[in-house]
Amino acid sequence: MTVYQATVSAPVNIACIKYWGKRDTKLILPTNSSLSVTLDQDHLRSTTTSRADPSFDKDRLWLNGNEEEIKDGGRLATCITELKRLRRELEKDPKQPKLSTFPVHICSRNNFPTAAGLASSASGFAALVSSLAALYELPASPSELSLIARQGSGSACRSLFGGFVAWEQGTSPDGLDSFAVEVAPREHWPDIHALICVVSDDKKDTSSTSGMQRTVATSPLLQHRIAHVVPARMAAISEAIRARDFDAFARITMQDSNQFHAVALDTDPPIFYMNDVSRAIIALVTEYNRVAVAQGGKLKAAYTYDAGPNAVIYAPKENIKEIVELIVRYFPQAEPFKDSFGLFGVAGVGEGKVVDGFNAAVAKKHAVGAVKGLIHTRVGDGPRKLGQEEALLGAEGLPKFVA
Amino acid sequence: MTVYQATVSAPVNIACIKYWGKRDTKLILPTNSSLSVTLDQDHLRSTTTSRADPSFDKDRLWLNGNEEEIKDGGRLATCITELKRLRRELEKDPKQPKLSTFPVHICSRNNFPTAAGLASSASGFAALVSSLAALYELPASPSELSLIARQGSGSACRSLFGGFVAWEQGTSPDGLDSFAVEVAPREHWPDIHALICVVSDDKKDTSSTSGMQRTVATSPLLQHRIAHVVPARMAAISEAIRARDFDAFARITMQDSNQFHAVALDTDPPIFYMNDVSRAIIALVTEYNRVAVAQGGKLKAAYTYDAGPNAVIYAPKENIKEIVELIVRYFPQAEPFKDSFGLFGVAGVGEGKVVDGFNAAVAKKHAVGAVKGLIHTRVGDGPRKLGQEEALLGAEGLPKFVA
Repeated sequence: MTVYQATVSAPVNIACIKYWGKRDTKLILPTNSSLSVTLDQDHLRSTTTSRADPSFDKDRLWLNGNEEEIKDGGRLATCITELKRLRRELEKDPKQPKLSTFPVHICSRNNFPTAAGLASSASGFAALVSSLAALYELPASPSELSLIARQGSGSACRSLFGGFVAWEQGTSPDGLDSFAVEVAPREHWPDIHALICVVSDDKKDTSSTSGMQRTVATSPLLQHRIAHVVPARMAAISEAIRARDFDAFARITMQDSNQFHAVALDTDPPIFYMNDVSRAIIALVTEYNRVAVAQGGKLKAAYTYDAGPNAVIYAPKENIKEIVELIVRYFPQAEPFKDSFGLFGVAGVGEGKVVDGFNAAVAKKHAVGAVKGLIHTRVGDGPRKLGQEEALLGAEGLPKFVA
Repeated sequence: MTVYQATVSAPVNIACIKYWGKRDTKLILPTNSSLSVTLDQDHLRSTTTSRADPSFDKDRLWLNGNEEEIKDGGRLATCITELKRLRRELEKDPKQPKLSTFPVHICSRNNFPTAAGLASSASGFAALVSSLAALYELPASPSELSLIARQGSGSACRSLFGGFVAWEQGTSPDGLDSFAVEVAPREHWPDIHALICVVSDDKKDTSSTSGMQRTVATSPLLQHRIAHVVPARMAAISEAIRARDFDAFARITMQDSNQFHAVALDTDPPIFYMNDVSRAIIALVTEYNRVAVAQGGKLKAAYTYDAGPNAVIYAPKENIKEIVELIVRYFPQAEPFKDSFGLFGVAGVGEGKVVDGFNAAVAKKHAVGAVKGLIHTRVGDGPRKLGQEEALLGAEGLPKFVA
């Protein structure tokens, strides 16, 4: 008996031009275009195995070992239904097995802890859509699949590509022109690295789904951002990426992170995602850049913050060692730095050399745990098809691993 | 020999519609109108004594016991020069002594510690201008004097009136139409009380003078605020004050505080004035209001934050007891609450009754000192002329008190 099964991994992406606001909450159509960097799946990924089998009772899904309900009309059901619909198109060819009529089992896992506070919905929905597309042998392009992933979680559409990815907002009410496109592949600018600073927080965040619609409903500044700021920034950062101009890339990235948090704060009641530790990291990066510019150079690092307190610092690879030393100096780590790229050798992160001219007083030294961990990664590729040995479903079509 | 001397006190004001941005930095002409509540001088005030004497060598000024230099062309010199100019007009009447030709000694003192983080420049310049105007027996109205105080410190112009005060931005390049006007006197709505929460901060703030011009230069959102948001809010909050509509007053006050901090955050590099304690107080007031509205009522309190982490909470007097109990529950105080209005009796602030339905998890209980102190005050009157017994200059024309 043939086993119809596919396993795919998909990457996390972190936006430089932020998505914040839907014009259609059911189709997940955004109020503005956005642009992100796809991070390397060697470090952060969601992996999903999908299997279609006529012996299954119904569609089922497991996430990190726990079964999740697939609610009728919910986001998971929408994605599965859409992919089955595309499969049915293929099945007009009578030689194709009728996989669209079989229930599916879907098993997904993230290789990073939920506690890290990294949004897993983007990589998760990208992996789900990609694994079903592989199972169904769909001839769809990444942009076509991004239309479906978008309906699972807006920013998931950008995880269908590696490199530098734009989500074009589109104008059509049916959403058919609201999809992801590649601005540049990772090979165009592989030098872009990322340091994720996982920040501890004792505050319950406003979910991005409810938060962004409160901003749409109440922020007087959001409409100006949508109409007048984002279009120019999308064009400028795309050009910066094409020109590999880190200075421009960094400036726009930081400005747009701040403006996203500004419109969150302009919401009624206001929404705060950054905390005092986030602010301290901004102060460190700002001072690090100030020194570089004062010495006749250009910006050396760019921070960006999503709907939470974690910082992602983008920088050319050559600056990451300095940046890690800087962060660790102010935010001592409980665990040794995981040196994925061999920057430090066996001695690990030492005190290092303070950057000449750096004003140490821009932040205070924090207690261990204020920054819970550091993850060094870089720009990465798009979804990867994996072999049978990486499948998450066992012979019976049930998860190999349970929580 | 006649002693020419006058002593005046002037109040602090806290804006509901925030002043942030100058279109002329020398004349201190703002990019938008603003509106404030004048606080009661019984609790917070600057007191200034001015004396003119032909025996003095030169103009001199003491602030809180320390002599300050009166720099040529600086803000202090500008105010003194303008008031001498008005005096000279009077001296066209030959019966008037030629006080404008005498050097002045000016001695000023705040009754609140600088460490409280309350902006003293508004009350300080209002007291300076008022005391010289009294010394010179100028027939100028408060609005006319506000033109001069504005050139000392923009927001000082609003401390020339009690009650509810607008600073009309004006359009004239010479600034002659940029002055303060009374929206309503304190007697119109004496029920507006204020609780100032003095928040500890270990961060050096960006000065408001440099910060606001960085916002003007770099924030894409500021222009939208100036052109489209503030004019409507000025009209709406003035109407709310006239109608004594606390619900509308509170909503606009909180929205405008948040928008001011939003444009600060939209600045490059970003400016942060609120910290995690400020955010926690916002969460408490938001939840307190949410419960009131959920129970069919209206907003009961409004927070507002200037260029620092301190909260000012405006509320009708009847709510202040609950609000103090709420704040003290989350922010235990080292010192007993100074119960200016006798809300608590001899027992002091107890645990009190938790507001029914209040979600205690919106903030965590902080350590003693996170909120360093609480000041309970209310809407107050304008500058007061004081008697000789309150003069700060002694017989020799030198300060009675030194630092």
